[in-house]
Amino acid sequence: MASQFPSYKYFNLTFPCEYVAHVETNRPDKLNSYFEEMWLELRTIFNTLSDSPDVRAVVFSGAGDRAFTAGLDVKAAAQGLLGPQDGKSKDPARVATQLRRHIDEFQDCISSIERCEKPVIVAMHGISYGLAIDISVAADIRLCAKNTAFSVKEVDIGLAADIGTLTRLPKVVGNYGWVKEVALTARVFGAEEALKVGFVSGVYETKQDTVAKAIELAGLMASKSPVAVQGTKELLNYSRDHSVKDGLRYTGVWNSAAVQAKDVSAAVLSGLEKRIPTFEKL
Amino acid sequence: MASQFPSYKYFNLTFPCEYVAHVETNRPDKLNSYFEEMWLELRTIFNTLSDSPDVRAVVFSGAGDRAFTAGLDVKAAAQGLLGPQDGKSKDPARVATQLRRHIDEFQDCISSIERCEKPVIVAMHGISYGLAIDISVAADIRLCAKNTAFSVKEVDIGLAADIGTLTRLPKVVGNYGWVKEVALTARVFGAEEALKVGFVSGVYETKQDTVAKAIELAGLMASKSPVAVQGTKELLNYSRDHSVKDGLRYTGVWNSAAVQAKDVSAAVLSGLEKRIPTFEKL
Amino acid sequence: MASQFPSYKYFNLTFPCEYVAHVETNRPDKLNSYFEEMWLELRTIFNTLSDSPDVRAVVFSGAGDRAFTAGLDVKAAAQGLLGPQDGKSKDPARVATQLRRHIDEFQDCISSIERCEKPVIVAMHGISYGLAIDISVAADIRLCAKNTAFSVKEVDIGLAADIGTLTRLPKVVGNYGWVKEVALTARVFGAEEALKVGFVSGVYETKQDTVAKAIELAGLMASKSPVAVQGTKELLNYSRDHSVKDGLRYTGVWNSAAVQAKDVSAAVLSGLEKRIPTFEKL
Amino acid sequence: MASQFPSYKYFNLTFPCEYVAHVETNRPDKLNSYFEEMWLELRTIFNTLSDSPDVRAVVFSGAGDRAFTAGLDVKAAAQGLLGPQDGKSKDPARVATQLRRHIDEFQDCISSIERCEKPVIVAMHGISYGLAIDISVAADIRLCAKNTAFSVKEVDIGLAADIGTLTRLPKVVGNYGWVKEVALTARVFGAEEALKVGFVSGVYETKQDTVAKAIELAGLMASKSPVAVQGTKELLNYSRDHSVKDGLRYTGVWNSAAVQAKDVSAAVLSGLEKRIPTFEKL
Amino acid sequence: MASQFPSYKYFNLTFPCEYVAHVETNRPDKLNSYFEEMWLELRTIFNTLSDSPDVRAVVFSGAGDRAFTAGLDVKAAAQGLLGPQDGKSKDPARVATQLRRHIDEFQDCISSIERCEKPVIVAMHGISYGLAIDISVAADIRLCAKNTAFSVKEVDIGLAADIGTLTRLPKVVGNYGWVKEVALTARVFGAEEALKVGFVSGVYETKQDTVAKAIELAGLMASKSPVAVQGTKELLNYSRDHSVKDGLRYTGVWNSAAVQAKDVSAAVLSGLEKRIPTFEKL
Amino acid sequence: MASQFPSYKYFNLTFPCEYVAHVETNRPDKLNSYFEEMWLELRTIFNTLSDSPDVRAVVFSGAGDRAFTAGLDVKAAAQGLLGPQDGKSKDPARVATQLRRHIDEFQDCISSIERCEKPVIVAMHGISYGLAIDISVAADIRLCAKNTAFSVKEVDIGLAADIGTLTRLPKVVGNYGWVKEVALTARVFGAEEALKVGFVSGVYETKQDTVAKAIELAGLMASKSPVAVQGTKELLNYSRDHSVKDGLRYTGVWNSAAVQAKDVSAAVLSGLEKRIPTFEKL
Repeated sequence: MASQFPSYKYFNLTFPCEYVAHVETNRPDKLNSYFEEMWLELRTIFNTLSDSPDVRAVVFSGAGDRAFTAGLDVKAAAQGLLGPQDGKSKDPARVATQLRRHIDEFQDCISSIERCEKPVIVAMHGISYGLAIDISVAADIRLCAKNTAFSVKEVDIGLAADIGTLTRLPKVVGNYGWVKEVALTARVFGAEEALKVGFVSGVYETKQDTVAKAIELAGLMASKSPVAVQGTKELLNYSRDHSVKDGLRYTGVWNSAAVQAKDVSAAVLSGLEKRIPTFEKL
Repeated sequence: MASQFPSYKYFNLTFPCEYVAHVETNRPDKLNSYFEEMWLELRTIFNTLSDSPDVRAVVFSGAGDRAFTAGLDVKAAAQGLLGPQDGKSKDPARVATQLRRHIDEFQDCISSIERCEKPVIVAMHGISYGLAIDISVAADIRLCAKNTAFSVKEVDIGLAADIGTLTRLPKVVGNYGWVKEVALTARVFGAEEALKVGFVSGVYETKQDTVAKAIELAGLMASKSPVAVQGTKELLNYSRDHSVKDGLRYTGVWNSAAVQAKDVSAAVLSGLEKRIPTFEKL
Repeated sequence: MASQFPSYKYFNLTFPCEYVAHVETNRPDKLNSYFEEMWLELRTIFNTLSDSPDVRAVVFSGAGDRAFTAGLDVKAAAQGLLGPQDGKSKDPARVATQLRRHIDEFQDCISSIERCEKPVIVAMHGISYGLAIDISVAADIRLCAKNTAFSVKEVDIGLAADIGTLTRLPKVVGNYGWVKEVALTARVFGAEEALKVGFVSGVYETKQDTVAKAIELAGLMASKSPVAVQGTKELLNYSRDHSVKDGLRYTGVWNSAAVQAKDVSAAVLSGLEKRIPTFEKL
Repeated sequence: MASQFPSYKYFNLTFPCEYVAHVETNRPDKLNSYFEEMWLELRTIFNTLSDSPDVRAVVFSGAGDRAFTAGLDVKAAAQGLLGPQDGKSKDPARVATQLRRHIDEFQDCISSIERCEKPVIVAMHGISYGLAIDISVAADIRLCAKNTAFSVKEVDIGLAADIGTLTRLPKVVGNYGWVKEVALTARVFGAEEALKVGFVSGVYETKQDTVAKAIELAGLMASKSPVAVQGTKELLNYSRDHSVKDGLRYTGVWNSAAVQAKDVSAAVLSGLEKRIPTFEKL
Repeated sequence: MASQFPSYKYFNLTFPCEYVAHVETNRPDKLNSYFEEMWLELRTIFNTLSDSPDVRAVVFSGAGDRAFTAGLDVKAAAQGLLGPQDGKSKDPARVATQLRRHIDEFQDCISSIERCEKPVIVAMHGISYGLAIDISVAADIRLCAKNTAFSVKEVDIGLAADIGTLTRLPKVVGNYGWVKEVALTARVFGAEEALKVGFVSGVYETKQDTVAKAIELAGLMASKSPVAVQGTKELLNYSRDHSVKDGLRYTGVWNSAAVQAKDVSAAVLSGLEKRIPTFEKL
Repeated sequence: MASQFPSYKYFNLTFPCEYVAHVETNRPDKLNSYFEEMWLELRTIFNTLSDSPDVRAVVFSGAGDRAFTAGLDVKAAAQGLLGPQDGKSKDPARVATQLRRHIDEFQDCISSIERCEKPVIVAMHGISYGLAIDISVAADIRLCAKNTAFSVKEVDIGLAADIGTLTRLPKVVGNYGWVKEVALTARVFGAEEALKVGFVSGVYETKQDTVAKAIELAGLMASKSPVAVQGTKELLNYSRDHSVKDGLRYTGVWNSAAVQAKDVSAAVLSGLEKRIPTFEKL
């Protein structure tokens, strides 16, 4: 199946089991830190996976032993934050315009994980700072290895996190005071604390265990009706941002088409006959 | 007091203590599974309790030892999802219209629990699948017995849950990753896990203990000022769906009438005199 | 530094370390209970701290050993709720207008804690009833001593809490069933329970320990870039009340000015040079 | 076709042409003024028309020469506003609860016009005061006779209009200053002014002309694909209350089912063959 | 009555008829242009009028023959926009913080017109540029003299209008293309054009006629029940910013207290007895 | 300047005066009807113009004498609506998924006109059906020739308009009844009617006059500060979809950077010196 996908420059894309894609940031010698070209490629990959009928769930992790990602590459940050410099000094309003466009595009790249129609499970390990949090909260589920060191690092470099952490993290965990504390102090926290507040759903011994567990979980989701799974992701994300009234109404409209899938009868029949259902591609 | 209420076909309605109503799904031989006539009757009951001055809190549970409810009755699901068939095959848009109306009404029936002006406490036990979750998240508080087996079962029958679970469950528990995991995998989870993530507020040894505890809790609420209790439910539900600014403003308007109740002086005086206050019916 | 601030009638204002202000309710003989003049003064103080370039984080606590605050002063409540009486009985609509104005202003005073541009850490101990909860949920982080006794007390005096608890508490903790239970029963809960549900972020042996810890935490925040810290507070509060889409957009606009601060280079350079950065006043 | 519908006590229901229902308030001797039983019946009628596959557009008017409706029946208003009196005087909070329930149900009855899945055209004439405005703004299109006298009359009886006028009128006409002026003064305005500000879409010589025109317009809509027409009404109403982003998304989900109707090919083919298409019932 | 009010430095406050206050910007030699001290005083005045039981409607106009207001005073603008300069150059983020606080307070002062519980009618004449539009759209109704020259002038001084015009003007008139055109070009438009698009409700020969008409209209509103009038203003403003669902619900809660006013029976009785009702102060 | 832009396949891109781009749909022999490749190219063009510092305003029109655009190309519609057919019949849920993705992308292409940071003026003539309306309401200002024939044509081909008309048209004109009428009947309306309801801002004798006027208007906007003009467009669009409170706050944050532009002093100085200001590129 992999043959239908191009190969990518900064990411490994593999297919560990049927309908499951595994995306791996591949810059381990630089602690998987990111610069602009990387997040543009990340968006391309997730847009492709989102539409591919051969993919039903996605695992995301980082290559190497040391880091999921250490966040922004320092040089990239310097350039990215301040935009291309052309020698002439611009006034603060014009710099702001460039910065806003830059942040918008950066946000849009990371949001491609959330927009991806298939569930995305992040398997984290080692250093997971700054952008690591932005990426992980755009995903659906977070697992991590025991050795993971997390930090909403941005205040330590003089800025408020702007690629999604401050917007999505409080909607991911239920403990708002904790979110404020870690975001306002940039302190490092570990796997157990992450588990306790609900930031991650499971902690595993090693990176390998974590990735294996993520693939297993993705495989389980991939074995279900893709109509049901993708509808569930969409409706949960929609409901997060709307009132209960609006959520129910959107759900009714969505399912008025979705329950016409053959998957319902396929699933029910398989259940009665105690066999594993197969579902058409979506 | 019961005499003022009619008797119902699929539910037992009793009054275990003053101002407390107990509604029990009564189809134990079918694991309390639901079909359309049942949820229509459920709405009738909750609309009635909502208005009755003799009711200040409601307990909801399921008859029999095996299940709070196993969810939809299979046949009902088949009919309900596809609407009345008249021999002629309709195009997908027309089928969608029927489905949307059907889902809307089904949602409205379950939402009658949330709309009920009095607090509703659900006591769960045994099999609690699919619709069991939709029902329980429309209530205010969830208790369960040790043996309860929960599942957001819908993806296993090829569809996204559409009667409230995907809309309300994330607003009930604070752990969004957990919600996504259980909704996307349909895996069964138990009482302890439900307690840990905040889905239920207490776990009790047996079904009987659970129902007894729910009645005790309902009795405690029923002993308070009904103006205060009903206002508290309304304002909490309103605030869930609105910004803090909007929530504060609505609260001010609401209380501008509510604090003119005699209950305030009754409560304060009783407090000073160390006796139990009584409140006029509402 | 203190010299630039006036002294206040009902509050002590001190500066335990650089850039950290400590506000203490000072009516210990009355269990720090509040009446109107006090919450008006509270607003004045927080408005002042919000603008002062010499303050980067705030600690809030209560004087004396017995109570953070027991809530409303009974007499104040009686007057406050019913407004100035002039002998003539007004109709309920006119009373409602007075009450609404009164509640609006009361809410606005307590909301000054949330509006304060700097992070506010509340250190609670002893009796912490009613208004204590309203105040604490308007702050960013809550710590408490082991002996703290919390209660959303309002239903016990015949009314729904209207100064912020019902609006903000559910957004602070992730366990909605728990919020409903404590708000509908007014039962007292302790420090351990508060920690478990995420209402407080830490429990300490004594009041002194709690305040010391709050000051330490405030000091840590005050050592960071004030542009980054204040932006983080604002963006977290904005995101709480808006969709992810809206949150990201607002963040981009906000940071298009904020990342032009010299703090970014100051922080990055200090990091490289392993020394503590200093930041200009804001 | 009429035979499938029951006859109603306060309304005439006729079918002037295929797929067009005409509902007429029938209390001309009392200027078609309303009391509770009437608006309950009105809801029953519109709920029925909403679901009936034999109805594709609805005209609403008032019997007799003098009034579309003069608004609330005075006695009804007195009772309705104050609720059933039982001799004992209730406190203002308890009266408020009864009033709120009463207003909610009254609003829900009038909103049945808006919820009706088919377009509703109101043909107005003569006295059209108070409730006349509430009713007409819940409809999709308003036509009127030259002699129509409109008034948002409520301030003249000491209250703010609460059955929909203040909520919907500003969304119907684009001139907010005009809305405020007529609502704050209760002054009577005529057909030409109503046309100029966009409150009505057409003014006709007599009541008969107006009704005839409304039926003609309804007939035109009824000749179109019911999937297209009903979708258009729904999407316009949804968009009124949501951001453009949300409106576009809902539209995409809605049409993903709706454009699978056979109506599209039926309409396109008829267009090419210059004949009138027929559409299956919906 | 005037005796109860202090006199103001930049505004004349008079009481042309019972319950009607007339506020007049009084800096005619400078074309009534504004600087900071003036808008702070404006807020003080409107906050006072909002609460005064002796005021039921307000007229706002400008002294002298030449201008309602020419907008910002140039010097004030220069200072206001850039904040107090202290010799040291601040970085753009710190300047942005000062600017944001400055704009927030300026907006809040002008919004005091909208927050004023009583209807506010603006009578405009002559030069009405920039801030003139911000002020007028915060009011409820706009009248103008034939000679009025309007302009959303801000783009001509290099900035986007930020004191309310861009937010409120599109909600005041229904013609969005027109709003964009005048806001993007800063072109001057006259009274007739303002009338045609619904920006003003009436055009009068002279300034004196305009003010007289505004007072007459205010007098008419002041003769109605203050409970009804103030409720109507509040509910219209609330509905502008909320969905129909939310608007109806808020209306029901609001009126559950408001219709308990004696004004209803007073108004109805006076109507029957053909005499002018009097209403208690509010 | 044109040299920096590539040439496009279906559109002419010219630069009639400084800082003004003119985009012209160039398929006159097919009445400028659209198919998928065209709207993808349209998005590319508007994304490019949005970022180009050499463009400050955009005019959009259609080539040839007969049509602005007749809407969808029939064949394109057939394909587009039903997606690529692969011989196997898919179930309605899978077809719905393809349709939803197709509509989403189509909407996104047309929304590129709204997202374009510079004002867009549409000059319409002749046949302007279906997609013509979707396109024009995504622009800021609409002008038209006398001979323009408009129609919200979609119900005539059996579907509800889904590329923006139903979402944006009601927010463009203030007359909601009129919107419903033209959308529910698909009737053709002319230039005068379009002007009267505010759909277009001006009517001109010929197509040439219309385009010339649009260019003149664009030229006027292009002569103003680009910081001011682009901020004004953004703030007006933001305010359309948010409450007044939110609009004011966003405005304050936006302008805290924007008013630091040199444009303010440049504009003020030029004003004092009676000369035309020049502004740096943005």
